[in-house]
Amino acid sequence: MIRHSVVFKLIHSSGSPEEREFLDEAVKLKSVPGVMKFEVMKQISSKNPYNFGISMEFEDQKSYDFYTNHPDHIRFVQEIWIPNVEIFMEIDYLV
Amino acid sequence: MIRHSVVFKLIHSSGSPEEREFLDEAVKLKSVPGVMKFEVMKQISSKNPYNFGISMEFEDQKSYDFYTNHPDHIRFVQEIWIPNVEIFMEIDYLV
Repeated sequence: MIRHSVVFKLIHSSGSPEEREFLDEAVKLKSVPGVMKFEVMKQISSKNPYNFGISMEFEDQKSYDFYTNHPDHIRFVQEIWIPNVEIFMEIDYLV
Repeated sequence: MIRHSVVFKLIHSSGSPEEREFLDEAVKLKSVPGVMKFEVMKQISSKNPYNFGISMEFEDQKSYDFYTNHPDHIRFVQEIWIPNVEIFMEIDYLV
């Protein structure tokens, strides 16, 4: 099992309509086939520069690759992620 | 619920006895009262500089504080963590 996650900070202020819209769009990614345990969470530690995180699990690398290359994911990255995210870091765990 | 996690890189090479010893010591932290869903995992993304992660959950901030201040955790940080960890980053999610 692979747990794919990304911590990030938006260019928008906390509680803004733009933040809400971004999160609403992000949640839609859970409908990509193979995505399990999809979570959008607030990041609350002051020891890093991020304030949100997304986590999901895949059965194997094949499912992960399917997600990465899925049109919904590619469109999300291009139209939603890139224009709205200031900084981010991806973390993938072998569970 | 708070999911406390830390990604890290040891000063030891992959597969070394020192790495094994560190991980064995880390696992013992799961016996601190209040610690739930304790996991030690390999970090496999090439998009960050870390190669391990530890994740655990706490019912609330009080349980998290209890863990932080527990003698077993303090001893682990001083005697095991600091001498063996090269770089790390803490991430805490509100679940």
